[in-house]
Amino acid sequence: MISLSCEPTMLPEQRDTQTPWFSEVYEPAGTAQSWRLTAARLDARRTPYQHIEIFATESYGRLMSIDGCVMLTSRDNFLYHEMMTHPALFTHGQPRDVVIIGGGDCGTLREVLKHASVRSAVQIDIDEQVTRLAEIYFPELCVSNSDPRARLLFDDGLAWIKHAPDASADSIIIDSTDPIGPAEGLFGPGFVSDCFRVLRSGGLLVQQSESPLIHQPLIKGIRENMRQAGFTDMRTLGFPQPCYPSGWWSATLAVKGDHSLDAFREQDSRARSFETKYYTAACHRGALTEPPFLRKVLQESGL
Amino acid sequence: MISLSCEPTMLPEQRDTQTPWFSEVYEPAGTAQSWRLTAARLDARRTPYQHIEIFATESYGRLMSIDGCVMLTSRDNFLYHEMMTHPALFTHGQPRDVVIIGGGDCGTLREVLKHASVRSAVQIDIDEQVTRLAEIYFPELCVSNSDPRARLLFDDGLAWIKHAPDASADSIIIDSTDPIGPAEGLFGPGFVSDCFRVLRSGGLLVQQSESPLIHQPLIKGIRENMRQAGFTDMRTLGFPQPCYPSGWWSATLAVKGDHSLDAFREQDSRARSFETKYYTAACHRGALTEPPFLRKVLQESGL
Repeated sequence: MISLSCEPTMLPEQRDTQTPWFSEVYEPAGTAQSWRLTAARLDARRTPYQHIEIFATESYGRLMSIDGCVMLTSRDNFLYHEMMTHPALFTHGQPRDVVIIGGGDCGTLREVLKHASVRSAVQIDIDEQVTRLAEIYFPELCVSNSDPRARLLFDDGLAWIKHAPDASADSIIIDSTDPIGPAEGLFGPGFVSDCFRVLRSGGLLVQQSESPLIHQPLIKGIRENMRQAGFTDMRTLGFPQPCYPSGWWSATLAVKGDHSLDAFREQDSRARSFETKYYTAACHRGALTEPPFLRKVLQESGL
Repeated sequence: MISLSCEPTMLPEQRDTQTPWFSEVYEPAGTAQSWRLTAARLDARRTPYQHIEIFATESYGRLMSIDGCVMLTSRDNFLYHEMMTHPALFTHGQPRDVVIIGGGDCGTLREVLKHASVRSAVQIDIDEQVTRLAEIYFPELCVSNSDPRARLLFDDGLAWIKHAPDASADSIIIDSTDPIGPAEGLFGPGFVSDCFRVLRSGGLLVQQSESPLIHQPLIKGIRENMRQAGFTDMRTLGFPQPCYPSGWWSATLAVKGDHSLDAFREQDSRARSFETKYYTAACHRGALTEPPFLRKVLQESGL
């Protein structure tokens, strides 16, 4: 697999939690993004898996970082959560059983449960503290945590999928951190093959696939794994995501069985009974056509 | 008009041009973006209008800044230039005469001249040095500068438009810097009214309208001006733009006369004879539907 490193180095004047900036230096691209803070660090927990911190920014609301990398902010997480969820669930004919791997902030879970057809949504995040901190600092993402259809497990997603029954899920959403540390295995071919087995025919796999601009080798690797696992159609949908490196992010969808990703339930999407901030049927349709520069790179690898 | 300030303050260790980072601190949002450099500053010119600098970044190629604000990088300028040009020119029935206000890096001009129907493209940038530096450091953007249909003027765009004949242009593209300094007047109602007069019926105005996420008051102001000037349909098309604050940018289109912006030449766009890296008919169609969070804000102001 492609190896990325997300160096949590802070710029010198920002190493002290009393100073007014949070910076993430993204070493592979030689870029950094910074937010001015309105307070000292709000919270921090060192868990067996990672170091989670919460900050209050001047204009993006709360910010959660894990090992120095921004995971989400209050202001812009709607983009990611909506695009990780609705394109897949409006492509599936009738999504009933959904599995979320990672997703501890519960934002994807909230979006999944907006779909009336869903009868079970299991979220498996290895680190309970992500959810406990989200409940405190991002309560708006956790409003559906006590929905009777929801089950929150704190466990190893790789092992959970390995032991899940064949053909038991309609969609699996891999809402993971970057492919380093605890999430590394979620970008490996073995895990993707397990997901294929666990999906029913017509099932959708969704994987967060980083930036179309600066992570093309990673996207190729993700799609290579999906193809090897047996998925037929694949599509990388781009969307703006200000708080991540390059401000441009993607979700890669793959479908099991004889179904084209062009055919989504466009009428249902237009007539949806719930609010979205970014997702529309038109943006879904637009995102299905990969930009030519990305298409070219994928085509060169037969993807 | 809305007042924005784009403080060119560099973080302390970056104030010396020998150090390896370029940072833009965007004061209104309390955010900053930084690029690691591979060399000392490549060039700098202090003109009567502004301070232009050229840097070599580690992974975004060359970077041009004006008064400390990033104008473009080699790697990601295709997004902006394509989205400032092709949606408007594929909406107009047969764009022949195009005016570019600003645009001194010549990237928009290059895109405009890809349209075979265009017989004249006049670019009016107040600062000749922007173009002279683009010719040296971004030669790929200047490949059409000697096209016989192109005319490069170095003049005040406000005055030029004021004296341009009525109904003499099919599209006017306002490819300006931020609404501070020399470009401030380009965001004022008087200039937009002049553009309306200079456009033929069916003509398209395009204005770079900053970030859908963090500049909603500015977008409202732009659209208010357009409506007051007499434009009928207006639409704010979003696109990723990593090098600008929030990484998400927009172009606002307005049409003169009885024409809906939904009706673009979709078949011509699909069958276009030239290459694009981001623009497709599908992304054009997708961008025409404004995201619900932006629609809501605009609707509250009757826009």
